[in-house]
Amino acid sequence: MSDSTLVLLRHGQSEWNALNLFTGWVDVDLTDLGRAEAVRGGELMAEQGLLPDVLYTSLMRRAITTAHLALDAADRLWIPVHRDWRLNERHYGALQGLDKAETKAKYGEEQFMAWRRSYDTPPPPIEKGSEFSQDADPRYADIGGGPLTECLADVVARFVPYFTETIVPDLKAGKTVLIAAHGNSLRALVKYLDGMSDEDVVGLNIPTGIPLRYDLDENLKPKVPGGTYLDPEAAAAGAAAVASQGAK
Amino acid sequence: MSDSTLVLLRHGQSEWNALNLFTGWVDVDLTDLGRAEAVRGGELMAEQGLLPDVLYTSLMRRAITTAHLALDAADRLWIPVHRDWRLNERHYGALQGLDKAETKAKYGEEQFMAWRRSYDTPPPPIEKGSEFSQDADPRYADIGGGPLTECLADVVARFVPYFTETIVPDLKAGKTVLIAAHGNSLRALVKYLDGMSDEDVVGLNIPTGIPLRYDLDENLKPKVPGGTYLDPEAAAAGAAAVASQGAK
Repeated sequence: MSDSTLVLLRHGQSEWNALNLFTGWVDVDLTDLGRAEAVRGGELMAEQGLLPDVLYTSLMRRAITTAHLALDAADRLWIPVHRDWRLNERHYGALQGLDKAETKAKYGEEQFMAWRRSYDTPPPPIEKGSEFSQDADPRYADIGGGPLTECLADVVARFVPYFTETIVPDLKAGKTVLIAAHGNSLRALVKYLDGMSDEDVVGLNIPTGIPLRYDLDENLKPKVPGGTYLDPEAAAAGAAAVASQGAK
Repeated sequence: MSDSTLVLLRHGQSEWNALNLFTGWVDVDLTDLGRAEAVRGGELMAEQGLLPDVLYTSLMRRAITTAHLALDAADRLWIPVHRDWRLNERHYGALQGLDKAETKAKYGEEQFMAWRRSYDTPPPPIEKGSEFSQDADPRYADIGGGPLTECLADVVARFVPYFTETIVPDLKAGKTVLIAAHGNSLRALVKYLDGMSDEDVVGLNIPTGIPLRYDLDENLKPKVPGGTYLDPEAAAAGAAAVASQGAK
């Protein structure tokens, strides 16, 4: 196979990002800022000649709309699309709908960071039928409503096999692949691509709306570890903002 | 097989609809009115419990964005999507980019109506490399840039086989199928579904943005010939407006 190009795009700011709430699988919309971020992401791709041949998204509107706006800006709305729940954000269990700062105050810094960033500590499971659960959502009927909580290791376990079985064949065919997804599903993929340890991924933050380009060699190893953001300065500022969530 | 439901949605007003220009394969965007029509189409589907399981679109942004906005309003953005050039608008040949009223004045009512509505009279072919041709468009690279002109019979010849081979299996599987496409590609499909003659289809006008529901029996025959618009009054007014294009 020849070299391959993979582009990762975390959705722009969502309504609950703006409110500092844990979102997980709750299907909130983008804010106006988030929409503008998505358009800017597409403009960056167009300016740098990085034109996707195929799109993969989660089943969540904040990723789907981000991809729509970005591809519209890059004049690539017409490429084939595949959607799958395995690209979804991490399920945040019983924390879904809770304020991040209040959660941190209530449970303490250590527990808060364990839920947010530890590799294998899931939050408490969400109660079925509760306000922010997905067990009655028709999009997850095939998987029994989906998980009740997840840690990052769970996301790796569902997303990486989908990547290797379904997305890698497109990469091996020489296609430029765009994945529009979420903070934690993209962290899971980057951990796999860069061969990061369970410990190192804890410190990884991916900013919203800025395409992250990976040029992969014939063994699907990144030529530049960590990839290259199309707007490195904005990406650094965005990653710092993600890291500070819950502080306010 | 059990009964099937097919929903046809013509894109909302485009920038060139508003300017009264022949559009064809030129990839113009929706107007704000067109976006509002698309949202209203999705609201009608949601209000009437008509929830698509799978989406088919053309490769053109006015249809793709109409589907996006409608499905967002109906909370069905997450359904699988298939895009294909065979759902595209009729290629309008050398008329693409021309003003409809000026074309009518220049060539006369009879020639104008023959190009617009006759079944088998294509406009003159577009010149390759000209301003409004698609021969350099990457989305049509696989088909040599696509046709240089089409009559409605040509659209029937490309779209109906795609319908029977690709879309019908989804209908036979019991899925509710949404097709987001164009005035003439939907006319071609309605002709097939309703068994209309080459003469009768000339008088058929499909309004923008109003979902048209076909309940099909086990032989894929419409239970109600012509289908049922989700907003019949608005559809009648819209069809009349389409019929009068070029008059101003």
